[in-house]
Amino acid sequence: MGLKTSENIPHLITAQARPFYELEKVIIDNRVKIESWFREAWYDTSPILTSSVDIRNAGFKIAAVDTNLFPAGFNNLNPDFYALCIQAAQSTLFELYPHCKKMLIIPENHTRNPHYYQSVATLADIVQKAGYEVKIGSMLAQKEPISVNLDSGTLMLYPIQKKDNKIISGDFTPCVIILNNDLSEGIPAILQDIAQPIEPPAKLGWSYRSKTDHFMFLNEICQAFSKLIDIDIWRIFPLFMDCGEVDFMQRDGLTCLVEKSQTLIQKIQEKYDQYQIKHPPYIVIKADAGTYGIAVMTLRDPQELTKLNRKQRTNMSISKGGRSVNRVIIQEGVYTFEHVGSEQAVAEPVVYMIGQHVIGGFYRVHKTRKIDENLNAPGMHFEKLAFAECCNNPESRQNTHLTQNQFYVYSVIARLALLASCKEKKALMT
Amino acid sequence: MGLKTSENIPHLITAQARPFYELEKVIIDNRVKIESWFREAWYDTSPILTSSVDIRNAGFKIAAVDTNLFPAGFNNLNPDFYALCIQAAQSTLFELYPHCKKMLIIPENHTRNPHYYQSVATLADIVQKAGYEVKIGSMLAQKEPISVNLDSGTLMLYPIQKKDNKIISGDFTPCVIILNNDLSEGIPAILQDIAQPIEPPAKLGWSYRSKTDHFMFLNEICQAFSKLIDIDIWRIFPLFMDCGEVDFMQRDGLTCLVEKSQTLIQKIQEKYDQYQIKHPPYIVIKADAGTYGIAVMTLRDPQELTKLNRKQRTNMSISKGGRSVNRVIIQEGVYTFEHVGSEQAVAEPVVYMIGQHVIGGFYRVHKTRKIDENLNAPGMHFEKLAFAECCNNPESRQNTHLTQNQFYVYSVIARLALLASCKEKKALMT
Repeated sequence: MGLKTSENIPHLITAQARPFYELEKVIIDNRVKIESWFREAWYDTSPILTSSVDIRNAGFKIAAVDTNLFPAGFNNLNPDFYALCIQAAQSTLFELYPHCKKMLIIPENHTRNPHYYQSVATLADIVQKAGYEVKIGSMLAQKEPISVNLDSGTLMLYPIQKKDNKIISGDFTPCVIILNNDLSEGIPAILQDIAQPIEPPAKLGWSYRSKTDHFMFLNEICQAFSKLIDIDIWRIFPLFMDCGEVDFMQRDGLTCLVEKSQTLIQKIQEKYDQYQIKHPPYIVIKADAGTYGIAVMTLRDPQELTKLNRKQRTNMSISKGGRSVNRVIIQEGVYTFEHVGSEQAVAEPVVYMIGQHVIGGFYRVHKTRKIDENLNAPGMHFEKLAFAECCNNPESRQNTHLTQNQFYVYSVIARLALLASCKEKKALMT
Repeated sequence: MGLKTSENIPHLITAQARPFYELEKVIIDNRVKIESWFREAWYDTSPILTSSVDIRNAGFKIAAVDTNLFPAGFNNLNPDFYALCIQAAQSTLFELYPHCKKMLIIPENHTRNPHYYQSVATLADIVQKAGYEVKIGSMLAQKEPISVNLDSGTLMLYPIQKKDNKIISGDFTPCVIILNNDLSEGIPAILQDIAQPIEPPAKLGWSYRSKTDHFMFLNEICQAFSKLIDIDIWRIFPLFMDCGEVDFMQRDGLTCLVEKSQTLIQKIQEKYDQYQIKHPPYIVIKADAGTYGIAVMTLRDPQELTKLNRKQRTNMSISKGGRSVNRVIIQEGVYTFEHVGSEQAVAEPVVYMIGQHVIGGFYRVHKTRKIDENLNAPGMHFEKLAFAECCNNPESRQNTHLTQNQFYVYSVIARLALLASCKEKKALMT
């Protein structure tokens, strides 16, 4: 167990070469205003301990398309910035729980995924180095600890018990539970009515969260933000619609989906016309409460929805953990024009946060996917390329270090999405 | 103006090769306990915005020997860690002044020192990137701004005025004054009775501070800390004595100095005997309210104090800004066994903090000085070698990355000194 040692992180080749986009420039030029605005927002908003935000950058539009509150992938961050991660954890945990000394991390139940456990080991290391005693307590371990072999050593997953409404692990009684499990299948009995705070709260798991709600809140936030820097909200916010209940297997609600998808495509086309964008609009239909890129569909022509075969409809019906999909979000597809390397592979940025602090991110890089495809799909192979710099150090002079400016822009978009999730939290917790 | 771009920072050669000292190991092994202890300390202590701490590392003993609350040298930090500096400034300023948007930095009045102004430019850049509008207001500028040419561009120093008990600069009305001037000559009229908060407070300038008081407070803190990790306080604290008023020119108080110096040398020798240290003890006599290595004397034999010639006595009588010295501190000399490069040049670590966060540091490296000499003396030449890693990411396995462990140890020693200065602040402000 331990943090990965530093590696040489390549810069994005085309990112450095491409022109400085006007939207990015507006954001960089307004950074003092933007940071003041975030300070005011955080002043009466309690942060969420961990989050990651998927971003698509089309140049004319840069938007958050998904927000994960129990992220994996901490091991894919740039090891040069672990000091930043540790400081962010220190600030956030000191603010939230100044007197706590022991923390228990509850991970996902992926028995067979060493990449995931490498992320858990990294998260544990960050929290430990922030100055806490840390143990990993797994719902998988019954009576005996499970040991997982990682490149960096052995990770121990300890059994957990509930005693007097507290989660304990043997004689280890944590004062905070760090949850790294998105609880897609609901909040298990052992995590219900717990005296210790759970961070992020169990109610932010996918059995309660709704992407539609998230984007409704994000819409409010992007309204205010776009007014602040005087831009069209569409430049930073993906349009969306929903149909309430749908059943792909029974084809219930499909007519609504087709109609709303058509309306949405039309709205996007109007915006494309306004900004003289020559690419065809597309939409993405996703499970309203899903993750891992499961139950995601990309469409140019909504009529395709009426021609889905049984396999396609089955795919759209089952989300993570076998949970059935009965609600979807129809979201504007945002092209990604980030490319990496001489092969011009498509890249999608993912930004990580601890509390209100952006701690880095990486690009999902896929060599065979196209610019309008979702890069987080089941079974697909992508490489993760850590951000070379991070994310609060923009330089307004155009000719130097474009990547650091771009990462600042991503940090702004990601924090807007985090604020939306904080509103979700407030709504779900009260 | 702007942050320096990244350079390749060499690691300390001998630091990596030398054995893992037992004292460092005790500190690393206790890091969770130590961080909890610091959290409790910070819980009811308001931090100081900027500080740097000079440390001497003799292996058997690692101690803070001087604490500067208005440091220069921000430009000598590792540019790879500017993100960490910015995040530290964000956390600290958000905690102290969540609603402030504009900050004025008041620097020293060194008209001819481009190195110093490069540090001011770096500090201004950090605060600006933390999300504040920043202006530099100099007491040197009368009616017109002064422009200073730096490698990174031009730095503008604007005139300041006092209006309705507020410091302003033209139409710029800051809500916080960041002071980077140690006010050795007293608090000037323009900074008295100011409505805005001044950070660090003007009363922490050298016209009020006393090294004796600092080390009295540091003694209290090191007492508690050494109990926490069960070590002899002497391992982290330099012994000291004082004689009240002295006058080198008139030779008043010299008898007291000789006697106390002898007592101190004897005490150090007892400790050296206890730990079987074969080096001869030495002491350092410093102006009680001084900086810049002015009025500092290193002695093995206290009788030398009776044989000072006129020039030597004059040197000990005048501190920065021509202020006369009438009080000194007699401090245990701590050897520095840090060496750099194939020439084995002597190196002395300096650790920088913003609020309670350690943001990096550098080594003062001097090729001709000896291990018992003060490396910060007037007119002397030293190189500054930025820490390669910083400072919260120790690794307990002995065989990897010793430097990052060492930097963690330095971060602990530096924070003890900062806590002592926070006690000074409390005493001076009430």
